[in-house]
Amino acid sequence: MLYISKKHMEEVISLNIMMDSIEKAFKIYESKNFQMPDRMHVDRKEGTILYMPCFTDTVSGTKIVSTFPENIKDGIASIQGTMILNKSKTGEPLAMMDGAALTAYRTGAVGGVGIRHTTREDCESVGLIGTGVQGFYQLLYACAARPIKRIYIYDLSKERVNFFKERLEEKLKNVEIKIVQSPEDLVVNSEIIITATPAQSPVLPDDKELLKGKHVIAIGSYKLEMREIPKSLYELLDELYIDTEFAAEESGDVIVPVREGWIRSEQVKVFGKLLGDKENINKNKGTSLYKSVGMALFDLVVAEAIYDEAIKKCIGQKLGE
Amino acid sequence: MLYISKKHMEEVISLNIMMDSIEKAFKIYESKNFQMPDRMHVDRKEGTILYMPCFTDTVSGTKIVSTFPENIKDGIASIQGTMILNKSKTGEPLAMMDGAALTAYRTGAVGGVGIRHTTREDCESVGLIGTGVQGFYQLLYACAARPIKRIYIYDLSKERVNFFKERLEEKLKNVEIKIVQSPEDLVVNSEIIITATPAQSPVLPDDKELLKGKHVIAIGSYKLEMREIPKSLYELLDELYIDTEFAAEESGDVIVPVREGWIRSEQVKVFGKLLGDKENINKNKGTSLYKSVGMALFDLVVAEAIYDEAIKKCIGQKLGE
Repeated sequence: MLYISKKHMEEVISLNIMMDSIEKAFKIYESKNFQMPDRMHVDRKEGTILYMPCFTDTVSGTKIVSTFPENIKDGIASIQGTMILNKSKTGEPLAMMDGAALTAYRTGAVGGVGIRHTTREDCESVGLIGTGVQGFYQLLYACAARPIKRIYIYDLSKERVNFFKERLEEKLKNVEIKIVQSPEDLVVNSEIIITATPAQSPVLPDDKELLKGKHVIAIGSYKLEMREIPKSLYELLDELYIDTEFAAEESGDVIVPVREGWIRSEQVKVFGKLLGDKENINKNKGTSLYKSVGMALFDLVVAEAIYDEAIKKCIGQKLGE
Repeated sequence: MLYISKKHMEEVISLNIMMDSIEKAFKIYESKNFQMPDRMHVDRKEGTILYMPCFTDTVSGTKIVSTFPENIKDGIASIQGTMILNKSKTGEPLAMMDGAALTAYRTGAVGGVGIRHTTREDCESVGLIGTGVQGFYQLLYACAARPIKRIYIYDLSKERVNFFKERLEEKLKNVEIKIVQSPEDLVVNSEIIITATPAQSPVLPDDKELLKGKHVIAIGSYKLEMREIPKSLYELLDELYIDTEFAAEESGDVIVPVREGWIRSEQVKVFGKLLGDKENINKNKGTSLYKSVGMALFDLVVAEAIYDEAIKKCIGQKLGE
């Protein structure tokens, strides 16, 4: 049995392999050859704990993630997590890994796959609204998927955005990183736009002229009351791509636009159904929106890929019997 | 974060500390100062996976246990498990431990606490029907709780009982261990009787004269269709002790006798309610039956005690960040 920490993941992970494994997960999802019970969640006074089990032919796994907002007061990460990976056939544990790092890598990879298929191949600029952990990894994947030269970042908190810029510069030495003063500035300068905020109202300007031709990857909204994307963007779309059917049931960025008639439900397409047929995904590379909410199957398939790489590269801590 | 394997547990565990921690769990259970969501279970063609989360003021934890019967064909343990222990206040993971070993130690300790309180202090003999993993640990605890000199074992499989005897002799060098040829022989010779089988009909002789004055610890039945204990025993009891209310809802060894009128429901007592008041538990040390089905709270409190001991004794494998 292997323990794979956040540091081990940093050593072992190739972002392109992670995106390939998300594409594999999309295919498993469409083949229906997996079992994904409903998430179980427990509410505590400190926050929420989520249990996300999933099973494929080769592996099964359970991600346990807690979100305790008050941790931040004590300088402790609010999101804590563990992934247990098992052999499907026997139930034997194969590995335990850092669940928070896994979540960041897989969420970034799901966004990265969106960039791979919905954006122009020559995009050189990307803008990020919401400079949290998820945003950080989204940008790493954006740079792996496209020849990015310029990154624009925006956040309501000046302190956070400065700190974020420093951390990002350490990772991405050949990319120019600029803090912008408004979402408008960000949209004007960026070909790809990533939103990764907990916002309850749109974080992009509701301006058709500004948004036209932009490729938006929206990560934040996973509940009805959460919204990042303005009405204008929907009116520019031929199709809205969602990572799973759950997005249409859970995210305010899909539910509200369909309900209000800004987009027709037939235009909302489950991404995995189109994958493998490049002509079917934003073929003219016009204005696009890719909305991700995630699912346990993504975690599982990515965890399996990380485990395989760790074994191959002899990285990770072996656990005795 | 610490990894605690089965071997680490063997080094670190004091059986008396384990039984003390089960008594602590009984008190927490009665105080209601804990949160124990319903178990979640997933059925696969290979078997079943159980998820057992629980929360107290100090720790939270999740035991994941799979039971895949076909594993045995390949020489792999059918029960595989993992326990993740977290800090309650922040959700930070404290330890991961072998869930199968934890289950064996805690189930044995729950039985051991029964022996501590329902049997005569001078008992020198114990009989075991069902020589599986649970039975093995039950006997270790019996020897820790009482000055046992003689052990009698019985199983339908000769091969298994011989192998079991060898393993037990390695652990208990100063105890005489005898294989008996029938449950009757076992009952005649034993003051304490432990049943740890998956039986669907009674494994003890239905004979009042034989059973009179015996102290029975029944571990096997956790479903309606499972039964180990015959009618006669109930008719000898003043009270039937159950480890949790769940036993009265789940075990055929409680449901059937009450339904059939072999014992009145008022005689069925939740053990934890009586604990701390020795006069209330089988005060004349007459015939007794203690029925255990277990619960996640037991796992959690025992896991916390194992973790505390491991930290104190510097045992376990430290996991990097």
